[in-house]
Amino acid sequence: MNSPLDWIRAAAASRDAAGLTRRLVTTKTGDGLDLAGNDYLGLRTHPAVIAGAVAAAETYGGGAGASRLVSGTLPIHDELEAALTALTGAPSALVLSTGYAANLAALTTLADAGTLIVSDEHTHASLIDGCRLSRAAVTVSRHNDLDHVADLLSRRDAPRAVVVAESIYSVLGDAAPVEDLIALTDEVGALLIIDEAHALGVVGPRGGGLVAAAGQAGAEHVVVTGTLSKAFGSQGGAVLSSPDIREHLVNTARPFIYDTGLAPAAAGAALAALGVLADHPELLDRLGATAARLAEACGVPTPAGAVMSVRMPGPHEAVDAVELARAHGIRIGCFRPPSTPDGSSRLRLTAHADLDDADLERACAVLETLVPDHG
Amino acid sequence: MNSPLDWIRAAAASRDAAGLTRRLVTTKTGDGLDLAGNDYLGLRTHPAVIAGAVAAAETYGGGAGASRLVSGTLPIHDELEAALTALTGAPSALVLSTGYAANLAALTTLADAGTLIVSDEHTHASLIDGCRLSRAAVTVSRHNDLDHVADLLSRRDAPRAVVVAESIYSVLGDAAPVEDLIALTDEVGALLIIDEAHALGVVGPRGGGLVAAAGQAGAEHVVVTGTLSKAFGSQGGAVLSSPDIREHLVNTARPFIYDTGLAPAAAGAALAALGVLADHPELLDRLGATAARLAEACGVPTPAGAVMSVRMPGPHEAVDAVELARAHGIRIGCFRPPSTPDGSSRLRLTAHADLDDADLERACAVLETLVPDHG
Repeated sequence: MNSPLDWIRAAAASRDAAGLTRRLVTTKTGDGLDLAGNDYLGLRTHPAVIAGAVAAAETYGGGAGASRLVSGTLPIHDELEAALTALTGAPSALVLSTGYAANLAALTTLADAGTLIVSDEHTHASLIDGCRLSRAAVTVSRHNDLDHVADLLSRRDAPRAVVVAESIYSVLGDAAPVEDLIALTDEVGALLIIDEAHALGVVGPRGGGLVAAAGQAGAEHVVVTGTLSKAFGSQGGAVLSSPDIREHLVNTARPFIYDTGLAPAAAGAALAALGVLADHPELLDRLGATAARLAEACGVPTPAGAVMSVRMPGPHEAVDAVELARAHGIRIGCFRPPSTPDGSSRLRLTAHADLDDADLERACAVLETLVPDHG
Repeated sequence: MNSPLDWIRAAAASRDAAGLTRRLVTTKTGDGLDLAGNDYLGLRTHPAVIAGAVAAAETYGGGAGASRLVSGTLPIHDELEAALTALTGAPSALVLSTGYAANLAALTTLADAGTLIVSDEHTHASLIDGCRLSRAAVTVSRHNDLDHVADLLSRRDAPRAVVVAESIYSVLGDAAPVEDLIALTDEVGALLIIDEAHALGVVGPRGGGLVAAAGQAGAEHVVVTGTLSKAFGSQGGAVLSSPDIREHLVNTARPFIYDTGLAPAAAGAALAALGVLADHPELLDRLGATAARLAEACGVPTPAGAVMSVRMPGPHEAVDAVELARAHGIRIGCFRPPSTPDGSSRLRLTAHADLDDADLERACAVLETLVPDHG
């Protein structure tokens, strides 16, 4: 009899042969400058954020102990949801354990077998998985192509429609035509689910994201999803919506109902990060300036947010560049097929508001040597 | 034009009319005895567990800052994975952000379009969602019916097969025939994915779960999933498996790859909880004795783990019992359709090792008045 692991071992051998095996490398404190992670405002290790995590753990314990619907909704969840509505201007917020869970929750409850989903071809894995779980008919629109979205919507038979996009895309770092998407979906009676994971705490009024920047935070057909694990330096996800949609999620979203509430320390850290950002909006200016300087060094346009994508000739060149940067004490990321939307290998760099001028210039000097033809 | 929220509002009105609307109620410190949550060992608020969360936040910050594959694997993740293998005897462990994510990760990578899944009819929402996302053909077996599982497996056309079960079921609290399932899947060359969310830290040798109790922790065709948010008082999930399966998950599991690493405080709290359990195995005895006493008060058999399920005449009676218990300062849960596997309304009570004798007897006195015909 063959082993049921045979196919798993064969897949591993194929990955190895193609140079595509991914291995976990432990990041130790002091392991170089971070231009790879998503801690855009540098708040992950901010003293106030750590103090927020510590105080919440001391007050409420290590975990929430139960589903939010059983006995796992703690006062700090309420405070965090209030702070998220203050940041974004959304009428209500619901906090979940991860951004992944937030996207699964939104998609699986707001789309169903009677829904046509029109989803941008560059959306995140969590949105794609949410689309698949929803049982809706899913069509994929060309990246940031509003006419294509309109065309797909106009040909729908389903009684309902949902458009899915990110306000700033996770891999390429470009922005969606947010105002136009909001207007189009309003016009045709569709919902818009828009993931602001890379926009909240990065862009928009006081970091409130691109839906807020469009003045549409209160639009009831717009549902914003986001994460607490990027600019807010913690863990968790959120759905920002009308109160009716929030109640719908509380009653029907399996990734919310059948999950333990967000850990107190994570809620406390995120709440503190929102406080630091509210008190220090100049962090957003510093982030923007840092992004512009890094983009210049890489020979790519200034990004819409904090994510830069630099095309490389192939996966081996991308890995070599990451290793060379690491040898210079700089951590950058790379995406290789199949995780890039366009099939090309790319370096992924992120800007961070806490990078000082000396470190920024040191990083730029290294990046200029790494990038072929300046990207 | 109608609003795209019309159907959501109509669904809310139907729920209200049926008395099935769920509302979030904030649990404040001191809000009564907890017989509803999953903090089975009472470790959520144990000083050592809080200290573990605090120390990890102070050392590593509020969040992991990136995917485990980018720069989000921290030394505390490695330590936690080592402690989980020590607890269970599994050859390797992979920690994810939630138990939900662990189940999605295991199912979506170990089953595919060439796989027949045979899944017990009482499995958790996260396992069901994982089955659906996997693209496998899914058949549902009658609850704990080994002959039915064998029969479904014998009729498979697919080249591969995966059996899905829980070692202790989340709603009814009963145990699966774990040894028999391990033997059967071995015999037919299938994988067994078994969720020990309600068994780890509850039953088995030093709390190592029912696969360990069967002496099969090293069996390479057995994949255990678990959570850090129940007996270990924190947040997070884990997949315990052979190293080859761990590597397969690291390379292909979207809920792992496209998610931020578990927050340091959550990892630190869980690691500390594992340490408390290792030093105080008598907690398991106390938990068992508490469960037996509560079951007696409810007129139901002593449970396999810490979860008791008490059948009620209908959803209104279940809600009334929860309210009456609350008036006596005791929090219990209830499950109503559609979240009960057999369509009946039930009270759900959980035992906790940190309940002292006086509180236990006070709770039992109240429970005896609540349960019709002693369940």
